[in-house]
Amino acid sequence: MTIMTPTRLSDGRELLYFDAGEEAAGRHRDPEQVRDRRSLPARGTDAGQVRFDELIGEWVAVAAHRQDRTHLPPEDECPLCPSDGARRTEIPAGYEVAVFENRFPSFGPRHGILPADPGPEVGEVAEPAYGRCEVIAFTDSHTGSFSQLPYDRVRTVVDAWAQRTEALSALPGVQQVFCFENRGAEIGVTLHHPHGQIYAYPYVPPRSVRMAKQARRHFLRSGGLESQTAAILAAERADGSRMVLEGRHFSAYVPFAARWPLEVHLVPHRQAADLAGLHGEERDELAELYPELLRRFDALYDSPTPYIAAWHQAPVDAELRPAGHLHLQLTSPRRAAGKLKYLAGSEAAMGAFINDTVPEETAARLREAATA
Amino acid sequence: MTIMTPTRLSDGRELLYFDAGEEAAGRHRDPEQVRDRRSLPARGTDAGQVRFDELIGEWVAVAAHRQDRTHLPPEDECPLCPSDGARRTEIPAGYEVAVFENRFPSFGPRHGILPADPGPEVGEVAEPAYGRCEVIAFTDSHTGSFSQLPYDRVRTVVDAWAQRTEALSALPGVQQVFCFENRGAEIGVTLHHPHGQIYAYPYVPPRSVRMAKQARRHFLRSGGLESQTAAILAAERADGSRMVLEGRHFSAYVPFAARWPLEVHLVPHRQAADLAGLHGEERDELAELYPELLRRFDALYDSPTPYIAAWHQAPVDAELRPAGHLHLQLTSPRRAAGKLKYLAGSEAAMGAFINDTVPEETAARLREAATA
Repeated sequence: MTIMTPTRLSDGRELLYFDAGEEAAGRHRDPEQVRDRRSLPARGTDAGQVRFDELIGEWVAVAAHRQDRTHLPPEDECPLCPSDGARRTEIPAGYEVAVFENRFPSFGPRHGILPADPGPEVGEVAEPAYGRCEVIAFTDSHTGSFSQLPYDRVRTVVDAWAQRTEALSALPGVQQVFCFENRGAEIGVTLHHPHGQIYAYPYVPPRSVRMAKQARRHFLRSGGLESQTAAILAAERADGSRMVLEGRHFSAYVPFAARWPLEVHLVPHRQAADLAGLHGEERDELAELYPELLRRFDALYDSPTPYIAAWHQAPVDAELRPAGHLHLQLTSPRRAAGKLKYLAGSEAAMGAFINDTVPEETAARLREAATA
Repeated sequence: MTIMTPTRLSDGRELLYFDAGEEAAGRHRDPEQVRDRRSLPARGTDAGQVRFDELIGEWVAVAAHRQDRTHLPPEDECPLCPSDGARRTEIPAGYEVAVFENRFPSFGPRHGILPADPGPEVGEVAEPAYGRCEVIAFTDSHTGSFSQLPYDRVRTVVDAWAQRTEALSALPGVQQVFCFENRGAEIGVTLHHPHGQIYAYPYVPPRSVRMAKQARRHFLRSGGLESQTAAILAAERADGSRMVLEGRHFSAYVPFAARWPLEVHLVPHRQAADLAGLHGEERDELAELYPELLRRFDALYDSPTPYIAAWHQAPVDAELRPAGHLHLQLTSPRRAAGKLKYLAGSEAAMGAFINDTVPEETAARLREAATA
């Protein structure tokens, strides 16, 4: 059983400990153990901006207020390791899984409701960057990776994601909760301690809008009986050529129109809107299959594969939500040992992806990948 | 006066020489000078695929047929340098500007018309990757950069872009012509010879669709009197805080909702649909201002700034085209000396951009950038 213990850092930010059971949780109820001994100045309420890009019709966060943020600390001052004597970090006590508010967030700390998209009229439309950005530390050990976490720890992470998804979805103005992990120096990650992030956006992000519209069209055409993702999953399982893993509750496949040299979707068989909507047995299996997928990514090459693990959840919006069906989009830009795919002119400027790998071949490689 | 001389490579691909005047063009009418002395096997008609990504509602090119393409040659075998004795390249003769069909294209060599977007129905929808991919060599000198080309050469490049835009737009099924340059090893460019690319897509690329929709809404609301880009340009010139350059026919500014650490839009004052629609004086000024912008990008740091230079032109489609207004989107992921912005979880998976730089500050830096 996962137990959450909420605390506050010295500047007022929330820090939540997630522990697998009473014994581990007990220490986090001791005020002396969890006290942040730093004297950070109280956090202000200044938020960054979101500016409306009228050429495209999308919000862009302009995080001007982050200009003064502290630079990334040297590795022996990792902010995610537990505080230790004079070395005071973002997390005062030892822990299993910890979630805290980002000190210099792209969204937040204010909450509020953005106006509806302003459309193509000319003018400078800027609003406060409402929302929330959280960091989730997967272990208090500085080294290692998600794929190497023990089963029980992954299970706690799944519960933490689910709890945060539910809690953040209930905040005023939050339209979408996004749990993700960027892994690898090749894609710009400079903090090695195993961790992910959770963003609560004040708008439905552009790719989510497009996915939600497609999902809704399919769902309505089916008379509300079948999600688009369920239909795709059924077709993939029947075809088989792009399947990677099949479990009782989750399956993984390389999508037919994969955009990245490595791309896998991990999908619950039952139409769950988000991680919070998974029941216990589903969470149990997810805690097995997800690290297994990550290990297969790593087994393809001699060095750890950089990846983005992105949990696509249903938007909060009541109209879009019923068609939503959780899926993980796991992608890597690695196209060969030591070679990355870059998003250049066609992808970055035109949004037109060109994939030089064949999805069916990628799936075969991942099926055959030996994992320790 | 720019003169185009069409020729063919030994496998049947088109190679076009663009010369500034009769004298330079003369050599390209001599069959012995332009003969491709290689005996390449005749090019097949196999195209790659475009697959419809039903989750998002977008086409993705899967260039499976490029698996067998030749690897990038060593630098002393640059395919863009003119052939020289036994060293035979893609371009037989010395040249000013040369354009040829990519040997292993993502789109083409077949032409044809894609079906309308299939919508969210389940199923594998794949079509031949109709279209055309061309390479444009800006100089026959292996070193240097676009920003260092002499004025006359840039003027010839502008005419070449215009000619290709017009010619490719007339091919069956072509929906969008995209002239662009990726510059810098940091963004994956492995061929140093100054060159760009021209893609003729068989569909309107996803970002172009969104821009065209916004542009059309604005245009219709104005009663067909004003393009969205013209309105934005007028507002930027009136405001001034994000202006970088102002000419008689073109101006450049950092967009209000810039997505990248460095981003500038260069826009013709008159509503031209594409590069082919620019008249002589506009092309003359463009040949001055565009390299000036590139030099300012380079003046910001001690080493050349990696960039993507993307010419957004009006789609060919008769409904979308009237609202179109050419603009250059010049972007760089460089956020500090030696540091790049990576598109990680929020941008790559959700399409939600977060810009840590302030557009008004970026504009001030570019206004003050000293160029040699």
